[in-house]
Amino acid sequence: MLNRGNLVLNNFLNPMRILFEQKSMPIDPWSEEQINFFLQTLSNMDTDKDDKASRVGEREARIASRLHLLTSSGFCHGVGRSGFLTAPQPKAPGGSIMYEISNYLARDFLRKFGLPNIQKAIVIPLCTGMSLALCLGALKPDWNEEKFLRKRKVLVPQVDHKSLLKALDLMGIRSKIIKGKIFDDAVRIPIEDIIKNYDDDCFAVLSVTSFFPPREHDDIKEISKFAKDKNLVHIVINAYGVQSPEWMKLIRAGIDAGRVDAVIQSTDKNILTPIGGAVIASPREEIITQISQAYAGRASATPIVNFLISMLSLGVKGYERMLLEQQQNRKLLEEKLQTLAQKLDERILKIFNPVAVAMSLNNLKKEQLTALGGALYNLRVTGPRVYNSREKAFGTCCEDYSQPYIVMNAAIGAQSKDILLAIERLEKAYSQIRKK
Amino acid sequence: MLNRGNLVLNNFLNPMRILFEQKSMPIDPWSEEQINFFLQTLSNMDTDKDDKASRVGEREARIASRLHLLTSSGFCHGVGRSGFLTAPQPKAPGGSIMYEISNYLARDFLRKFGLPNIQKAIVIPLCTGMSLALCLGALKPDWNEEKFLRKRKVLVPQVDHKSLLKALDLMGIRSKIIKGKIFDDAVRIPIEDIIKNYDDDCFAVLSVTSFFPPREHDDIKEISKFAKDKNLVHIVINAYGVQSPEWMKLIRAGIDAGRVDAVIQSTDKNILTPIGGAVIASPREEIITQISQAYAGRASATPIVNFLISMLSLGVKGYERMLLEQQQNRKLLEEKLQTLAQKLDERILKIFNPVAVAMSLNNLKKEQLTALGGALYNLRVTGPRVYNSREKAFGTCCEDYSQPYIVMNAAIGAQSKDILLAIERLEKAYSQIRKK
Amino acid sequence: MLNRGNLVLNNFLNPMRILFEQKSMPIDPWSEEQINFFLQTLSNMDTDKDDKASRVGEREARIASRLHLLTSSGFCHGVGRSGFLTAPQPKAPGGSIMYEISNYLARDFLRKFGLPNIQKAIVIPLCTGMSLALCLGALKPDWNEEKFLRKRKVLVPQVDHKSLLKALDLMGIRSKIIKGKIFDDAVRIPIEDIIKNYDDDCFAVLSVTSFFPPREHDDIKEISKFAKDKNLVHIVINAYGVQSPEWMKLIRAGIDAGRVDAVIQSTDKNILTPIGGAVIASPREEIITQISQAYAGRASATPIVNFLISMLSLGVKGYERMLLEQQQNRKLLEEKLQTLAQKLDERILKIFNPVAVAMSLNNLKKEQLTALGGALYNLRVTGPRVYNSREKAFGTCCEDYSQPYIVMNAAIGAQSKDILLAIERLEKAYSQIRKK
Amino acid sequence: MLNRGNLVLNNFLNPMRILFEQKSMPIDPWSEEQINFFLQTLSNMDTDKDDKASRVGEREARIASRLHLLTSSGFCHGVGRSGFLTAPQPKAPGGSIMYEISNYLARDFLRKFGLPNIQKAIVIPLCTGMSLALCLGALKPDWNEEKFLRKRKVLVPQVDHKSLLKALDLMGIRSKIIKGKIFDDAVRIPIEDIIKNYDDDCFAVLSVTSFFPPREHDDIKEISKFAKDKNLVHIVINAYGVQSPEWMKLIRAGIDAGRVDAVIQSTDKNILTPIGGAVIASPREEIITQISQAYAGRASATPIVNFLISMLSLGVKGYERMLLEQQQNRKLLEEKLQTLAQKLDERILKIFNPVAVAMSLNNLKKEQLTALGGALYNLRVTGPRVYNSREKAFGTCCEDYSQPYIVMNAAIGAQSKDILLAIERLEKAYSQIRKK
Repeated sequence: MLNRGNLVLNNFLNPMRILFEQKSMPIDPWSEEQINFFLQTLSNMDTDKDDKASRVGEREARIASRLHLLTSSGFCHGVGRSGFLTAPQPKAPGGSIMYEISNYLARDFLRKFGLPNIQKAIVIPLCTGMSLALCLGALKPDWNEEKFLRKRKVLVPQVDHKSLLKALDLMGIRSKIIKGKIFDDAVRIPIEDIIKNYDDDCFAVLSVTSFFPPREHDDIKEISKFAKDKNLVHIVINAYGVQSPEWMKLIRAGIDAGRVDAVIQSTDKNILTPIGGAVIASPREEIITQISQAYAGRASATPIVNFLISMLSLGVKGYERMLLEQQQNRKLLEEKLQTLAQKLDERILKIFNPVAVAMSLNNLKKEQLTALGGALYNLRVTGPRVYNSREKAFGTCCEDYSQPYIVMNAAIGAQSKDILLAIERLEKAYSQIRKK
Repeated sequence: MLNRGNLVLNNFLNPMRILFEQKSMPIDPWSEEQINFFLQTLSNMDTDKDDKASRVGEREARIASRLHLLTSSGFCHGVGRSGFLTAPQPKAPGGSIMYEISNYLARDFLRKFGLPNIQKAIVIPLCTGMSLALCLGALKPDWNEEKFLRKRKVLVPQVDHKSLLKALDLMGIRSKIIKGKIFDDAVRIPIEDIIKNYDDDCFAVLSVTSFFPPREHDDIKEISKFAKDKNLVHIVINAYGVQSPEWMKLIRAGIDAGRVDAVIQSTDKNILTPIGGAVIASPREEIITQISQAYAGRASATPIVNFLISMLSLGVKGYERMLLEQQQNRKLLEEKLQTLAQKLDERILKIFNPVAVAMSLNNLKKEQLTALGGALYNLRVTGPRVYNSREKAFGTCCEDYSQPYIVMNAAIGAQSKDILLAIERLEKAYSQIRKK
Repeated sequence: MLNRGNLVLNNFLNPMRILFEQKSMPIDPWSEEQINFFLQTLSNMDTDKDDKASRVGEREARIASRLHLLTSSGFCHGVGRSGFLTAPQPKAPGGSIMYEISNYLARDFLRKFGLPNIQKAIVIPLCTGMSLALCLGALKPDWNEEKFLRKRKVLVPQVDHKSLLKALDLMGIRSKIIKGKIFDDAVRIPIEDIIKNYDDDCFAVLSVTSFFPPREHDDIKEISKFAKDKNLVHIVINAYGVQSPEWMKLIRAGIDAGRVDAVIQSTDKNILTPIGGAVIASPREEIITQISQAYAGRASATPIVNFLISMLSLGVKGYERMLLEQQQNRKLLEEKLQTLAQKLDERILKIFNPVAVAMSLNNLKKEQLTALGGALYNLRVTGPRVYNSREKAFGTCCEDYSQPYIVMNAAIGAQSKDILLAIERLEKAYSQIRKK
Repeated sequence: MLNRGNLVLNNFLNPMRILFEQKSMPIDPWSEEQINFFLQTLSNMDTDKDDKASRVGEREARIASRLHLLTSSGFCHGVGRSGFLTAPQPKAPGGSIMYEISNYLARDFLRKFGLPNIQKAIVIPLCTGMSLALCLGALKPDWNEEKFLRKRKVLVPQVDHKSLLKALDLMGIRSKIIKGKIFDDAVRIPIEDIIKNYDDDCFAVLSVTSFFPPREHDDIKEISKFAKDKNLVHIVINAYGVQSPEWMKLIRAGIDAGRVDAVIQSTDKNILTPIGGAVIASPREEIITQISQAYAGRASATPIVNFLISMLSLGVKGYERMLLEQQQNRKLLEEKLQTLAQKLDERILKIFNPVAVAMSLNNLKKEQLTALGGALYNLRVTGPRVYNSREKAFGTCCEDYSQPYIVMNAAIGAQSKDILLAIERLEKAYSQIRKK
């Protein structure tokens, strides 16, 4: 009977052994109990758990409440050392291992889901915007040298997202925005326009995959070639792009074709963690080292732990299943919206986007458009975007988008119920507003 | 009997009512159950908990595992909105209230414990180093204007701490370090030297309170006057200074005498949270607004929650008790180290520091000094610093500190047991090494 | 935005309001967070949570560790008062409400799932066997009176289950076992045999619904009539019978036709709690009061809390879905076992049982039968019963069951995966053993 | 650094290794994290955690909600097998080990704290009252034999406690109560009276240690000799007596001098678990075996887990400290009550009791006595007993106790704050009532 006990216990512990051996994303999901056990074992290697230690530093990961053990999964020492994120911290052997494993999983995850050609990845305890700031800070020229003093411009194919623009502002970088152009319904930034805007003060170029309509993804491959040609740092903002094999393919091709320094993706939008983390990947290991060393100080371990929890609780199979569901939901969204559009005498905008769908709102007047947004909020539809581009251009990524529209997403993790209810409520809201 | 039930329940809930009314640190500690109940109530106001919502955004705070509810205390939406940390987030009413309350508590906490003259404070989901980077990013001149292109220097009274220097590097700022000078045992940076180093390219000056010996705190008051005089941004690094009424007094006086823009303090070192947060305070509300708006994107709520947990689980009385214990332990540390010094024919260095004490290690040779550090690590003494300044100057904050020494801290949260054991083990390690 | 927060919070709290109003099983499942919040609110009404109380009793529900709050969901005072289970406990208003609500739900649950004709139910912090002992202890004649001294026999249609027989032994009751008879494959106890065994020393009769083949359920209706006729206490052992509408129908008819005093069902086998609870129901309220008053002392609240957790986390819809799955799995089990039987030249025994299926093992010899049990254990099949009735009669509920057989269950909560794997492994084990 | 991690982890795990080796109560307390880790490791040996198992039994410890894992610490299979509590359960190797270890600790705990002469102990998932019923059920004569039919009386030195009397009623046992007699203030039951009441129908005698004034403990030694002499089962009710070395000494002497079959003590009152468990000890191993085999069925593991949590979280040192505090608080209670008595012209009753103190209430009239109880309840004093023995004799353990009184306890786990507040509030309530 004891043998049976050992058998069951080993069955429970086995995935942990495999994880250490293979340093890759597990195929099958772990149970909550397994994840907990694993995190506890590691966090009990940190010196703040050593009741035989005597602590005479000014920072010893002391905590005021046991509740802190829950919010940090016991990794009270955080991650990083003296401004080097991935440096092992002698006071926190367990936390250091946890972070190292997470970074291995980050690389494996991206390699498995679209970027086999990256060399290294790192989980960053910051969101996409701040991660961009960090990358730029790490990869910028040395402005203390007179010759680089003016080399502070970054080429930005227009992307109407405040956080990204703030990242540039924060770093004191001058963003040179290349305006979007309309191609039927879609807004794109032609590579020629980017090339045209280049001057010697530019040191980097950004590009974007996942974004909301009418803006389509950038031509990563051409930007990549151009970056190589002009010796520009090239950072791809792939915010919620891991969920789409199509967007990932663009980046893979970009890496192969020219120069990509870093690819930034959010952990919450791609693998369903609470907000606060990003994964930065690069085809060159030294880039990741540079970024890791640019971070000033230590950081909360929680965003890393959250990444790890998602990886282990999903597993490769779980993530594949979620990708499949996303694709089905995206299809459902388009079909239902198509049907509704016909009813309302509106139309689906022709824009490539594997997550979102946009529908015109030509039959609504200015005030009705405003009312529609409010009505949907009150009907508990979260996340739709209603745009009246005649009123406010920011968000369309160009200057003169003439038709109003609504955007809805079938993002990873959404349920078909979300889609069906949203369409139903949209119809209700639209009808009520037209009647008034 | 039901009345009794209500009475007990109200007694349980009452501190929450008072917190909302007074928006100040509770006098008495809350129980874990009360803190949990409070955090749960708030986080259940966020829309990701609404099972009647339909979610069609690309970011809806979906989570892959219930374990994420523990690490985030349910605040899966994080904090901040579109690059404005303190802006309320419509998808997260509960999280927004949680953050607002935390910022009120941060101000109240600092006002109660030494800085009655601040106007606003904010809890930042970043450590001290990155918080400094954020402050500088927010308060820097507009380098896009030609006239400010060269105004990128910051005066730094020498402080041998990698994270702080990295913060300047990250932002592309030129640090103008004013070298430390030796005054008997202590290392100080005279105000005249700081003034002497000023030129028109400087836009800011840093100052430091808490630091490890032999470096003493800066003359905050004089730096503050000088900052006002030259119109410099003045940021005080008060890393673990809240625990010392003496250091806090220096800042208070500095604020009154001249210009202080921001005071940065760590949450882990001052109020015993897991690593990852800081509190930034200012005598001017608009400075905090600027800093809050400079953050690019959203952030993990966990560092904020950790701050709140510490505040509520300590209460004013708990913190006062901890301050008292710190003072007693500091005294104990000096006494014990004094006794040991006499035994070993060493001496206590005469350096003002309300947390740390330094002892000379004149009788140890070069290799023995290295051995001592290792021996203490093996004896499970964490946090002491053994310096051989003849070998490596970094850490002494000056160029020519001639005597080797060891530094130990009696920081807030340490127990007398820590002190006693550390001295005992130091004696043991020292003796063994001398014998060899 | 605050309105939205309140809306979401009310949506979260609403099921609790409804529960108090309707005192019935919720239609939809509650989330873990809702259940936790509810239990916490109640347990924080108990006086052991009152930090303003002064406690000078010898029992004040003090606890040595906060972990005890988890195992008891905060109901440290347990349930019951001075040997009266359902009496409200003044020190535990919250715990008393929790128990009262649970008993309402127990009645509602049984009424909804097959016994509309019961008047009262109680959740008992004991398993089926001890619950039977409690019922008999409560409903027995007063043996202190000389005239009842010999009235201590209970009629027991043969049921080969140690716990039930031990319950009678524990109470010092003489069980008068009426032997099972074989009808084709099935074992039944004819009502005539029960009647034949009656004498004046009998005060009670038991009957059984759910049991494992070859024993079929008793003729509850006829036993019930007989009990009424002879004025016997009649207790129905419905161990895991709630999962079967067919078994429940037998009891319902029994109640209508004659006398049923108490119906006992396990909480773990019927609604998937950890082991340790039972629900006793009766068509007469005073019977439940008598049983409640017979319990000597207070009891752990945990089995009650577990009952409540299951009720709230399943809801009516959840339980209906599980019943449906059980029926599908039962069908699957029979089909797969039928196919296997044909292959092995064995046959499915013709026995009515909505949960279990039995297959003959005529082609295995004595030692092979023993080996089969062991082999299945090693193949990690838990719960099958392999019987060689020629060797050991106990378990067959009769004396001369001639053919060996194996029994497998498709019980509530099992997955189709369990069934499929079990059949596959049975085939494997059987083949290997035959080969040897 | 990895070595350090292993060192810290081993330090964390070491107490578990020692526990398995020594099977005795740990000297030092374990941390919550250690206890959790230990319980998780064991419960993950149970087959319900085996995701490779196929489950075809009718009882497989399936659960409807993960919350059940908290209330049961993962031991969903409960304890016991087929009506034999300590029999290992093949489906639950981990749970079986957990129970076995608990029983070893129970014996060690009692041996260390007063009963070195016991041979075996068992933790029972029932309170004191039901444990008494279980003991009597296990140790009674075989009433099915005609010669024992009338041997159903138990001698009970008067003890006015409903639960204990109900235990006898439940089992259909006739209690022969020997009335208490007054000796100055104390109520005792003289051994001669017990002997006088004996007749051939008696098969057992009870005795009591811990009880509330004016009833003093029984003369265990003489009852023990008498039990040996008359061949009576002798059960000592030691409800909350482990906290007093004096009461324990009486039992130890009783065991040595004659016959003691079982000693029953509550887990909640002695080691601060939630309500629901007892420890039964015996100087003879076979008695414990008999009791263990008398339990009908399986039982909730939670009361056992609670016992284990208390043992591990207290440790020998923790319990010694609590005993010391209890003695100090008992002294404080007497002193304060003495002072108050002088003020009120009342007096302390002269009754031996190491936990409780009684004060006369001679100056209060009938209605005032009733009012006092209510007033104390409203002032949030829980647990005092106000008796007007002229009105209601039950509770005094005799017929004609003439003076009214109040009893207060300084029980283990109480704080001096409890005592001080209770006296203060008593004075307040008394004064108010006298004034009216």
